[in-house]
Amino acid sequence: MSEHADKIKKLAREISIVENNASGAERLLDAAWKKGNHAFRIGVTGPPGGGKSTLVNCLAAAYSDAGKKTAVISVDPSSPFTGGAILGDRIRMNELSARENVYIRSMATRGSLGGLSMKTHDVCDILDGHGFDIILIETVGVGQIELDIAQAADVTLTVLVPDSGDDIQAMKAGIMEISDIFVVNKSDRHGVEAMVLNLRSLIGLRRTYSTLPWEQPVIKTIATEAKGIDLVLASLEDYKAMLIKHNNWDNIRNERLKNKVIQLVDGAVSEAFWTREKRDILRDALFSETNKRQSPFKIAEILLHSLRNA
Amino acid sequence: MSEHADKIKKLAREISIVENNASGAERLLDAAWKKGNHAFRIGVTGPPGGGKSTLVNCLAAAYSDAGKKTAVISVDPSSPFTGGAILGDRIRMNELSARENVYIRSMATRGSLGGLSMKTHDVCDILDGHGFDIILIETVGVGQIELDIAQAADVTLTVLVPDSGDDIQAMKAGIMEISDIFVVNKSDRHGVEAMVLNLRSLIGLRRTYSTLPWEQPVIKTIATEAKGIDLVLASLEDYKAMLIKHNNWDNIRNERLKNKVIQLVDGAVSEAFWTREKRDILRDALFSETNKRQSPFKIAEILLHSLRNA
Repeated sequence: MSEHADKIKKLAREISIVENNASGAERLLDAAWKKGNHAFRIGVTGPPGGGKSTLVNCLAAAYSDAGKKTAVISVDPSSPFTGGAILGDRIRMNELSARENVYIRSMATRGSLGGLSMKTHDVCDILDGHGFDIILIETVGVGQIELDIAQAADVTLTVLVPDSGDDIQAMKAGIMEISDIFVVNKSDRHGVEAMVLNLRSLIGLRRTYSTLPWEQPVIKTIATEAKGIDLVLASLEDYKAMLIKHNNWDNIRNERLKNKVIQLVDGAVSEAFWTREKRDILRDALFSETNKRQSPFKIAEILLHSLRNA
Repeated sequence: MSEHADKIKKLAREISIVENNASGAERLLDAAWKKGNHAFRIGVTGPPGGGKSTLVNCLAAAYSDAGKKTAVISVDPSSPFTGGAILGDRIRMNELSARENVYIRSMATRGSLGGLSMKTHDVCDILDGHGFDIILIETVGVGQIELDIAQAADVTLTVLVPDSGDDIQAMKAGIMEISDIFVVNKSDRHGVEAMVLNLRSLIGLRRTYSTLPWEQPVIKTIATEAKGIDLVLASLEDYKAMLIKHNNWDNIRNERLKNKVIQLVDGAVSEAFWTREKRDILRDALFSETNKRQSPFKIAEILLHSLRNA
């Protein structure tokens, strides 16, 4: 137990360093990447109140039972203002976190929303380096953040609830495109069949967009009673097998590697460009008396002049 | 009428060019910036179903009645999959778009969500260049996109509905921080006083975060009956006066100019860096047999080598 506690402590510390982009973050990520990129990254998304946390609990417990090293990242784009962990996390603490092969972590925005999806990628990489088999990434809320975080996942599972207007919301937020598996949770509620039909007809329309031989399944669950979880797990395995068969498992990892390289390079190139002299030129332009009529294109041109002549 | 129609056609064409980043976009934006940055940019946000469109209609009609040249941008992060204009737009078409001093435009994502907030800035700049006094920016949905678009606005108005659980959602999505004015719409509904109290207590907590002498008002409206619109308009004017008094009106515009310069410069610097030779190095690294164990930090280092030695 003590050895396990030490390992968890080390992992938590590494994740904090990466989350805060503190000193040593690059070295840790570098080491993690060298160990490869083997974990199955499962995104779980959908509007609030759909029972995502309960479903993620069920999936994590099932994977853990099957001997898989399982991590849960709960990405909460809530404000620093609300603070603290959401209720779902606290429930999970009791049920799951006592298990040696389960690790649970909440990520909040702490003011900088833009960087959250990047951080999510990095945290997944660290977990991957620590040999996790399964990474469940749960996002709260509907919107841009989910679309960004879907890119960190190999598969995206969308949790909807019947009779809640979710079917329309799903389309609104572009969820149709990013969802690989639909879960209609709380399927003992009124309106479940209408919702399943509605989703199926939308999926029928969507087929022309997809390049993969995969028709999004619609799976009914009652997560609070662990009903239908076996079907979700089977579907996730089917999806993974399909990715591997069609070379997409490797393609996704190549794409992640490429994006990370571009992010690192562009960051470094920008940093090298913005010397003190250049920052001074920008500052002077901003505070010049005529700045209200100065075009950003003109200022950019002045700043870029040396680059063009190099 | 013909002259007006020509003007509108020209404006619509310019916006399309900027939206698609087509040839000539830079020249148009440059020209618009030179005319200054005078419009009052009002963001209107909040969860779906709150009556945002109706409220925006009322505000646009009121500004138009007061002789202000008024634009409405409806930013819809829905997917290309759903296609077409939302209902609110079609209703507006009849009511407002016949007016000579009103211009209405929907912006959708067309697959690239990341660029949407940047495009929103650019479209506002074009409208500003065309001498609009008021730009109402309406966003659909709760999430990241709203926070991004709030940055394009001088003031952000959040529309909530009583007894809908919106108060909690508001906190979740960081809306408390970005909202300058709260509107509780459909205020004839049950639960309105509880919601107003709830919001006021949250606002009390928030005050420590704000640096501006502004306590977010909570205004009750029934937009379908145009009730409370005068209070919203008065509050918007108060906010604008406060911004001007505390120099923030200019600061916001300076910040926008700075961000645009940085965006242009970083884009150009990145483009200059990624020569064919560099892209080849990246491609080779991605398709090397060992790529699964190659760290992005190592690849970035190789790519940046020439930069560091320059």
